[in-house]
Amino acid sequence: MPSILRVNLTKGVVQTEEVPAKYRERAGRWLTSSIVADEVDPQCHPLGPNNKLVFAPGLVTGTAAPTSARISVGGKSPLTGGIKEANAGTKFATMQARLGLRAIVLEGQATNGTYVLEVDRKGARLVPAPELAGKGAYETTDALIAKYGEVGVCCVGPAGENRMAMAGVCFNDMKDRASRYAGRGGLGAVMGSKGLKAIVIDDKGTRAVPLANKELFDEGRKKMTAALRSHAVTKPKGGLNTYGTCVLVNIMNEAGGLPTRNFRFGRFEDAAKVSGEAIFDTNKQRLGNELYNHACSPGCIIQCSNTLHAADGSEIVSCLEYETDWAFGPNCGIGDLDVLGKLTWLCNDIGIDTIEAGGTVAVAMEGGVIPFGDAQGAIGLLEEVRKATPLGRIIGAGAAITGKTFGVTRVPAVKGQNMPAYEPRVVKGIGVTYATSTMGADHTAGYTIAPEILGVGGKVDPFVVSKGELSRAFQQTTAFIDSSGHCLFIAFAILDIPDGYQGMIDECNGLLGTSWTSADVLRIGEEVLAMERAFNAGAGIGREADRMPEFMRIEPVPPHNFVWDVSDAELDIVRG
Amino acid sequence: MPSILRVNLTKGVVQTEEVPAKYRERAGRWLTSSIVADEVDPQCHPLGPNNKLVFAPGLVTGTAAPTSARISVGGKSPLTGGIKEANAGTKFATMQARLGLRAIVLEGQATNGTYVLEVDRKGARLVPAPELAGKGAYETTDALIAKYGEVGVCCVGPAGENRMAMAGVCFNDMKDRASRYAGRGGLGAVMGSKGLKAIVIDDKGTRAVPLANKELFDEGRKKMTAALRSHAVTKPKGGLNTYGTCVLVNIMNEAGGLPTRNFRFGRFEDAAKVSGEAIFDTNKQRLGNELYNHACSPGCIIQCSNTLHAADGSEIVSCLEYETDWAFGPNCGIGDLDVLGKLTWLCNDIGIDTIEAGGTVAVAMEGGVIPFGDAQGAIGLLEEVRKATPLGRIIGAGAAITGKTFGVTRVPAVKGQNMPAYEPRVVKGIGVTYATSTMGADHTAGYTIAPEILGVGGKVDPFVVSKGELSRAFQQTTAFIDSSGHCLFIAFAILDIPDGYQGMIDECNGLLGTSWTSADVLRIGEEVLAMERAFNAGAGIGREADRMPEFMRIEPVPPHNFVWDVSDAELDIVRG
Repeated sequence: MPSILRVNLTKGVVQTEEVPAKYRERAGRWLTSSIVADEVDPQCHPLGPNNKLVFAPGLVTGTAAPTSARISVGGKSPLTGGIKEANAGTKFATMQARLGLRAIVLEGQATNGTYVLEVDRKGARLVPAPELAGKGAYETTDALIAKYGEVGVCCVGPAGENRMAMAGVCFNDMKDRASRYAGRGGLGAVMGSKGLKAIVIDDKGTRAVPLANKELFDEGRKKMTAALRSHAVTKPKGGLNTYGTCVLVNIMNEAGGLPTRNFRFGRFEDAAKVSGEAIFDTNKQRLGNELYNHACSPGCIIQCSNTLHAADGSEIVSCLEYETDWAFGPNCGIGDLDVLGKLTWLCNDIGIDTIEAGGTVAVAMEGGVIPFGDAQGAIGLLEEVRKATPLGRIIGAGAAITGKTFGVTRVPAVKGQNMPAYEPRVVKGIGVTYATSTMGADHTAGYTIAPEILGVGGKVDPFVVSKGELSRAFQQTTAFIDSSGHCLFIAFAILDIPDGYQGMIDECNGLLGTSWTSADVLRIGEEVLAMERAFNAGAGIGREADRMPEFMRIEPVPPHNFVWDVSDAELDIVRG
Repeated sequence: MPSILRVNLTKGVVQTEEVPAKYRERAGRWLTSSIVADEVDPQCHPLGPNNKLVFAPGLVTGTAAPTSARISVGGKSPLTGGIKEANAGTKFATMQARLGLRAIVLEGQATNGTYVLEVDRKGARLVPAPELAGKGAYETTDALIAKYGEVGVCCVGPAGENRMAMAGVCFNDMKDRASRYAGRGGLGAVMGSKGLKAIVIDDKGTRAVPLANKELFDEGRKKMTAALRSHAVTKPKGGLNTYGTCVLVNIMNEAGGLPTRNFRFGRFEDAAKVSGEAIFDTNKQRLGNELYNHACSPGCIIQCSNTLHAADGSEIVSCLEYETDWAFGPNCGIGDLDVLGKLTWLCNDIGIDTIEAGGTVAVAMEGGVIPFGDAQGAIGLLEEVRKATPLGRIIGAGAAITGKTFGVTRVPAVKGQNMPAYEPRVVKGIGVTYATSTMGADHTAGYTIAPEILGVGGKVDPFVVSKGELSRAFQQTTAFIDSSGHCLFIAFAILDIPDGYQGMIDECNGLLGTSWTSADVLRIGEEVLAMERAFNAGAGIGREADRMPEFMRIEPVPPHNFVWDVSDAELDIVRG
């Protein structure tokens, strides 16, 4: 029987309960958002005892479905003040699913020390871990792997312990690096505020996740596998496997939509130097052979996770994602891959969201704290975050707070969260997603870059402003995919290959015994969004928060020299 | 003909225009909120070129009406993100009124230096003033008085120039001290963001403000004068004239409603040492004679403005108001009057709101930056604000941002503005005002302390929670008084003396030729509030922002051990 594990940090007690009937079909984001909406007061302080932090693997996570080892983390966000779901691909997800724990819910807060939560087939225990206090995520993960062996590790770095609003929740990857982040929205600060440094999960002795209709499920996963293996973006030695997500650097630069120097420009003169192609070529030169990418989590057949190697062949970091590369690269005016690798490693170790961190450093550059392009200065700012100096605490609080603190007006944030790596004045659909997402500015909430830039799932002119319906459909579909346990990158394949899309539905029906159709995908997605919107409304984040910052409405961005000109009415279409 | 002076800082041009017909009856807060609501995009950045800063004397300001030399300053607040009106008593108000300038409207922003605006009978001019850049408000005011003679001076300190959200707008008092502040909501940062350091206004050669019905007006001002001269709180050598607003320290402490150490407690063990009585006795001892208070502005017959003198008889500061005394005293755990005087002087010079500054230092104490009670530490934090160091910028951004930056959950703020000197868990009506005011937590928006604590305007039990209607009526009446040009302190007298209340109405009717009744007072007040609420809604600040911070709902405050238990429905009564 699937169950929910509740951990009360105030009382130091754990208990397991049956999954309520109303949650029977819910997993991943659908379940984290349900529990948060049902149990958390939208007016509570995100770092107080009444916030909760929920971990839920996706519906088909832990099965043989390809590229489905995602875990959703949910709670009230200290960054946005609204509901938050962030997800990551990690062996932790698989293990939690195999243990039959549909959700782990952290409640209350411990104020008397640093704890680790052990979870395995026999139950769960909170154990004091003073030796881990203040430790970086790499050292923490290494120590826990050394102690527990082959386990899933979830932890926070010093930023989370210091309750900083850009702190993420870290998971181990296939080589037990502290590199897979449910990064956005500051959920690491929520975990830190509860006195929990880490969760160690061990699925030894568990059996396969049960399937209601194995035949249908297998049919589905085969369709999905076929789609992923054949699409140009997701197939072996395809775009993502070869160049990783950084394949987007040159593409977005060419489109004039690569935000540069804190969204002052749409093209970066050193884009080629920090592109996915440059990473591939650099590794080839330094290692003497071509290096294709690897899986971040069990059962992933897209395998987009890269490594960056130093001149001596040693590993600088894994993984350097496009949004990270962009956040510190073009967005800070830094054109040196080795520096970007170092900055990524620092973010992983300190335990902060790379998008928010890079975006915040750029806002600090805008505010004159250090100049644009100052690589050593950027490294220095992250070290301030680690040490939690006053300057480090400003940065750690994110771009919106940093902007307010330094009196900066050019702050590319929505609902308190910094925008990712796509210029909304140029690619209007992604701007609609930034403005209207329940999560604050977030590309993964409705990735219209696929049709607008990549020609995936149709071809749509990025400059056209009527993108309300497009973003709405993407946000609904995404909310479903985030609940299924699949990585969002399956979308590249299944939006172009109808059989792959049907495969996703078949997998879910095979697991649950339901008879969902594509209409249910949108229905369920909308249900998730509606819950999230209702929570946000209760927290005081309504329709008028679905708006872009003023500077984008009045400053044209070169080279296209567009302003943000999507009407409020168009934005409101997303709400239905 | 009354006119409006528009000053475009972007273009460096000034122009005068007729007052539109719809504004004919509007002045003070009614006019600043009208112009902001009509002309400012609620979604604009408060520090960008599209915000406006409006200066409007009250309706009867500049006439012989007693205690009516108030000026309202309005704009979009960088602290709350909503509409803001803050007012001060100053000769500047009288001079602007006599010049017939119903409003001065600052628009755009100068990015090429520091300017002073000269306003006199011949017109207005922007003049470069690089020599004033970065100067404290005292030095700035001294320099301008030395240069221009008998003039009204409005300026910002370094905090305003540095666009800090706790910066106030400073005016000169009767002795040309830089001591009268339109303090709350960060309007000094708006002025600073426009490149304007100061306004110098000179009414030489002007004639009296014209009256439509002099007889009625005179009747009104006589009724008002009689009321102010007879009420125990406002009469000569009465409560305010003897002890200043600090008369409230012992009263609030006795009531268990004096917020102490960042709202952890309701009583302060050293309250008597920082009370109004202590100030009176200290001055008497140090000067060798009894010192009664003085007028802050022309024509004030309440005369509540005090001075604090050092052991050698020299002046430490004027004025030490109750909310300032409280903010750094009980609220920071500092029980030394001389230190409080020094902190007040520093706030005045740096150009920051004393309530927000003291409240923020208390939140920083809560966050462990310095201990509670650390007087030298508090002085040091203000010096950091002056220097705009990273720590100073955190403090300068106000209590809510400081709380977020240091991960503090006990932050007594509503809509981003720190609560003043009355514990809302104990005095429920003032809590309703804090929660529901269009201005963020603000006692002056609806001062129910009068009936709840002082027995003025009736006697109401402070512990009773059904205070929605009471606060609503006070907020309406206040919005009218803030528009009339009278100091809010006339309320003490006119709430108890019906003839005084009628006097206020007669003065207005005498000036305008209208025939308002007491129903019009509430009607006009509600109209002002409705405009302000509509602006806030457009800025994303709606009903759900009319709520108290969670910690007050879950932490009882000694000695009464009450939590905040006023229902949301009761709060919503204020919206009508």
